[in-house]
This record gives sequence, C-alpha cells and structure tokens, in this order.
Amino acid sequence: MSSNPADERYRRGAAMRRKVLGDAWVDRSEKNRNAFNSDWVDFITRGAWCDVWTRPGLEPKIRSVVTLSVVLALGHWDEFRLHLRGALNNGWTREEIKEMIIHAAVYAGVPASNHAMKEADEIFKEMTL
Amino acid sequence: MSSNPADERYRRGAAMRRKVLGDAWVDRSEKNRNAFNSDWVDFITRGAWCDVWTRPGLEPKIRSVVTLSVVLALGHWDEFRLHLRGALNNGWTREEIKEMIIHAAVYAGVPASNHAMKEADEIFKEMTL
Amino acid sequence: MSSNPADERYRRGAAMRRKVLGDAWVDRSEKNRNAFNSDWVDFITRGAWCDVWTRPGLEPKIRSVVTLSVVLALGHWDEFRLHLRGALNNGWTREEIKEMIIHAAVYAGVPASNHAMKEADEIFKEMTL
Amino acid sequence: MSSNPADERYRRGAAMRRKVLGDAWVDRSEKNRNAFNSDWVDFITRGAWCDVWTRPGLEPKIRSVVTLSVVLALGHWDEFRLHLRGALNNGWTREEIKEMIIHAAVYAGVPASNHAMKEADEIFKEMTL
Amino acid sequence: MSSNPADERYRRGAAMRRKVLGDAWVDRSEKNRNAFNSDWVDFITRGAWCDVWTRPGLEPKIRSVVTLSVVLALGHWDEFRLHLRGALNNGWTREEIKEMIIHAAVYAGVPASNHAMKEADEIFKEMTL
Amino acid sequence: MSSNPADERYRRGAAMRRKVLGDAWVDRSEKNRNAFNSDWVDFITRGAWCDVWTRPGLEPKIRSVVTLSVVLALGHWDEFRLHLRGALNNGWTREEIKEMIIHAAVYAGVPASNHAMKEADEIFKEMTL
Repeated sequence: MSSNPADERYRRGAAMRRKVLGDAWVDRSEKNRNAFNSDWVDFITRGAWCDVWTRPGLEPKIRSVVTLSVVLALGHWDEFRLHLRGALNNGWTREEIKEMIIHAAVYAGVPASNHAMKEADEIFKEMTL
Repeated sequence: MSSNPADERYRRGAAMRRKVLGDAWVDRSEKNRNAFNSDWVDFITRGAWCDVWTRPGLEPKIRSVVTLSVVLALGHWDEFRLHLRGALNNGWTREEIKEMIIHAAVYAGVPASNHAMKEADEIFKEMTL
Repeated sequence: MSSNPADERYRRGAAMRRKVLGDAWVDRSEKNRNAFNSDWVDFITRGAWCDVWTRPGLEPKIRSVVTLSVVLALGHWDEFRLHLRGALNNGWTREEIKEMIIHAAVYAGVPASNHAMKEADEIFKEMTL
Repeated sequence: MSSNPADERYRRGAAMRRKVLGDAWVDRSEKNRNAFNSDWVDFITRGAWCDVWTRPGLEPKIRSVVTLSVVLALGHWDEFRLHLRGALNNGWTREEIKEMIIHAAVYAGVPASNHAMKEADEIFKEMTL
Repeated sequence: MSSNPADERYRRGAAMRRKVLGDAWVDRSEKNRNAFNSDWVDFITRGAWCDVWTRPGLEPKIRSVVTLSVVLALGHWDEFRLHLRGALNNGWTREEIKEMIIHAAVYAGVPASNHAMKEADEIFKEMTL
Repeated sequence: MSSNPADERYRRGAAMRRKVLGDAWVDRSEKNRNAFNSDWVDFITRGAWCDVWTRPGLEPKIRSVVTLSVVLALGHWDEFRLHLRGALNNGWTREEIKEMIIHAAVYAGVPASNHAMKEADEIFKEMTL
C-alpha cells in the first residue's frame, strides 16, 4: 500500500515520526497500511508529525512530556506505550519517567498513574530482553 | 483560621507551594481558610506540595509541564490558571507555553487547547497591566 | 408551560425529584420550562427520577453518594451543586461531604476535589445566610 | 494583527470557517488576534477548517453532528456554543438539535445533556431577540 | 433466563435493539443473561432502546452518528464496536465512517481516533471473512 | 524487593490496604515490586491508604462507594476490579453493587455502566468458583 504523496509536509512529518518513534515501530505501522486506514496515516503524518512536532518553539524532548502527560490523563494507553518509547528516544531516563507518572497522580488521580506504572513496567521489561 | 500543624511535611509543602505559586496567591488562599476547607488545604499542602513536588527526581520546571498538560487535558481550568503562573515562576516563557498548548491540541483535541489559549491570553494580559 | 402527561412514571419521578431536590429548586425549574426544554424535563423526570431513583435496591442516601462522586469525577458542576443540596436532604452532614470530597481526590485527582471544595463552600455559605 | 500567510490551505480553511460559523463570529475572532494567539488561529484554520472540514467524504451537515456530539460528551462548552450556530447554518433545525441532545444523554450521561440543553436554550433565545 | 416483562416499552425497545444491532448480536447478549445482569438488560432495553431510539424526531441513521461520536470521544470501545455494526445497519458506508473518525480527531484528539481506526479496521476485516 | 520504610504512615496504610483489598491481592502486589515500581507502591500506601482511607470522618464502607463510583465514571477498570472486591470486603452485597452500577448509568452514561456490569459479572463468577 503506498498512497502517500511525497509532498513537503508528508516528507518532513515522516522523518520526524521515524526519529521519535524509531524505525522498527514505523516500519511495522507502514506494513499495516490498507485501503481503510491509509488516509488516516497520511493525515497524522502531516497534521501531527509535521505541522506540530517540527515547530521550532519547543524541543522534541519537551514535546514528549506534554504528550505523555496528556495521554496518561486521558487514558489513551496505545498512545502512552508508543510515546513512552518516543520519550526514551528523545532523551528521558526511566527514572525521570517514573517521576512524571508519580507527579501526574496528583492531577489525574491515582488510578491513571497506577495503570501507567503497569504499562511502563511492561515496556521496560520488553526492552531489557 | 490557623489549624495547620507545623509538622515537617506541612512546612516543606508550604514552602514549595509559596515558591511555585508566589506569595500573593498563597496569602489570598490562606485568608480564605475556614472551618470547612481548612482540612483540605492542609491535605494538599502535605500530600501534593510536599510529598510530590519536593521529590528530587525531577526539577520543578518539568513538574510544571506535566501539571499544565494534565489539567489542560482534563479541563481543570481553575488549576490551569494557577499553574500557568507557576510555570512562569518555574522558568517557562510565554512563547514556550503557547507551543505547549498548540502541541497538546493533537492529543487532547482542539477544543481543550482553544480554551487554554483564551485562559492564557487573559492571564498574560492581567500580568502585563 | 404544562406539557407533562400525568402518567404513573411521571408522577412517581416528580415526587422523588421534589423529595430529593426540595420544592424551591423544582418550582424554579418548572417555571423555566418552555417549548424547547420541556421534553427534556419530562424525559429525566421519568427516566432518571422514576426509573432509577425509586428502585428499591438502594436507599436514596446511598444514591446521593454515587451521584455526587460521579459528577465530581466528570466535572459536571451544575449537577454537583444540585445534588449537594440533595445529599443534605438525604441525610448527609457537611462534614461527611467534606470527607467524600477529600477521598475522591485520590481517584479523580486533586483538581476535581479542589473545585468541588469551592463549590461546596459557596453553597454552604448561601445556605447559612 | 495580520500574520496569517495567504497560502492555499489557509484560504480554503478561512472560507470554510466563515461559511460554517458565519461572518459575525469570524470577524469578532479575527479582531481579537494578537501576538500571543495568532499562531493558534492560523493553526486551526489550516489544520481543522481546511484539512478536515473541506474533505469531500462527508457533507458539512454531518460533520456538524460529529462535532456537536464530541464536544457535548467532553464538556467543551465554548466549542458547543460555537458549533451549535454552525449546525443551524449547516441545515439542522432546533428540534433536531434537541433530539441529538436527548439522544446523547444515554451515552454521555444526563448531566452533559442537561448542561447542553441550558446552553442551547440560551443561544436560541439570543438568536430570537 | 427470561425475567423481562412483556410490557409495551420493553417490546418496542427490544424490536429497535434487534433492528439496529442485528439478530446475531442480540441473541448472543440474551443468552448471556443471568441473575446478576438481567435487570440491567431490561433497564437499557426500555430506557435507551425504547425511550430514546424510538423517538420520532431524528432518524436512526443520525442517531448512529451521535452514538458513535460520543463513545469514540469518551473511549467506550465495547460500545464503539457494537454501534459500528449498528451504523452500517443504519445505512452508513465504511468510507463515511472513516471520515467521521478522521473528523472526530480534531475535537476528541488524535489518540481517540487512532484507536477508533484500529477497532474499525478489525471489525471490517472480521465482517469481510 | 523490600525498600519500604517502616514509618508510621506506611504501617497504617499497609494495614488498611490489607484490610480492604485482602491478603491474597496485597501479597501478589508485593511480590511484583521491583526497582521501577517500588517507590510508587510506597507512595500510594502512605498517600492513599494511610492519609485518606484511615481518616475518621467516613467509614470504609462509604469510602468504597465513593471509590467505585469515581473509577466507574472515569473508566479506570483495573481499579474498578480491585475495589469491587474491596467493596464486598467492606460490607456491600452483590445486589447493592448492581444497583450502584444501574444508578451510575444516569450520571456517567450507559456505556460506563454497561462495561462495569461485565467486569462485575466476571469477577463474581471467579469468586464463585
């Protein structure tokens, strides 16, 4: 499946996405493109990864904290797992991520952080293997 | 109203709260203590401002981003206004806060960031006067 | 405006609503009925106040805790104010409501309970006047 | 304040925004642009009003239902008021909007629809004056 | 298990539920009734499927959009899968549902629509088999 | 893994946690402690189980209703399962819990209670085995 046009926004978004999420994850996602979801992947590559993530006003490392905090608060766990890896790629340590999760408990409630700890624990174990 | 015990957790929390939110805000809050809300103020001074904010693993500047992002995502606007001032006190610029709000729109939706822009715009105008 | 049919569900719901929320509140609401909102008032009188609140399996006092906890968690403040008065009518004290709000902070986050404290404080002041 | 570049995405988004929200609302918003919020207005004009609203796969009338339903569910009332006017402009009647609000109560809970009824009632009264 | 009384509301609700969700789904649900959940199934058959879905003011096809949009926004994925099939039964195409999901991303955030795309993709694959 | 200090808050919180959740659950959780999650377990043992649950103003039975209602409303299902067992330990019957779930549907929406019914049904079946 290769419907994505090679316009400038798409190219810049695809590069940023690959930089943050890593080749393994992006390759897998691209392999799963099909007639139903391809428009969506194009849409977020341009609208999120280019239009927002490449803006110069904030370094990617800080964008990772905003992202993780928002998705933890809203219980978007697919996205949390994804951006947890992105946060490590962008320079955060596991210890710092643990602190973000503890901190978030005050504002998003203990259950959100409790679940985030489980997700992070599992992902860190997978990465250690 | 002065029910707050001078234990170590309370003292450390009260100091952190004053450092992040500023004397003007804390003085006003303390003046509003009464028989109904005093336990609550003691509770968050110890449980949030001491037990979480004074933890060494993450600098207050980063704690401000986590806080702002979570409360923006959940629509807690009282808290957003409060911690917007805290974020400035902890070293973020208005331009960087604008970028956080734009970034959060991808993950929390445009309406949350749209409202956050209005709140931030009003607070920055008040602070300029 | 008096479109509400006098069927059994409506009558039982209207009686429960009046018992929990009080005459003053219901009289004001009924006075505000108009061509746009009248269907809605009929709908909740039957669907919420009769079909749910009059079920025998749980006393109204406990239904008030469920209600307050859910609307605090979801930030429905109109409904929180309304059901705070209902909770007092159903037998809870101000001290117990304060404890519910403090307890909820663990699970819904500090900002939700912080706002609930403000709302409760204002309502209790109004009621004291 | 006139930082918005006249690129194609901006022009198409601005036209759609004006068509859905009406001149009065857009003129007021544009007058409120300033150094802080101008990037944001440009961002949503391109990213929401052009990239999403002008997509051919769904008529604007249906986009209005999706929008109203999502913002009602999430309690984004600024956006609800705004898009309520947009829904009328896109061909929905007040009666149909009332039905959407009643329907949404099943899935988003009674308090969300209760508040939506109040907002809609106020806006419809303003428009009748 | 067959505790459901054959009152008018129950009969009309059961018929609408069957029409929207299809026999296969309803048969499976009815087979899972037991002493614990039977009251609940009766409750939603009357309160949601009769009292709301059979109201004349809005055709079922539009009710499906409201439903899908609300549950996508709130992350109720069991209900999303259920009503995705209902939306197809009520006349929407897969392409139109894709557009609704892309549209919702603006208002509910990218992660909600990202997960909705996955759910829809899986269900459409199951249906094709 | 045994990093938890034996201070007074920790001891009182651990006792309350064991009383509400039961030995089986707590033993399993303690066995899963590791370098990453141990701080978190200490944090909630003190901050939630001691500082909040042991407060004298509200009996644990009522704290269970507040907890269940909040986590049902917010869709925190790990926590719902956990505290469903806690609610039984604190004196609620399965019938009463069913009523709480039906009641919550009015305020949190049908999908939240629909999912809660499934979770409760599964847990009650496990407990019967």
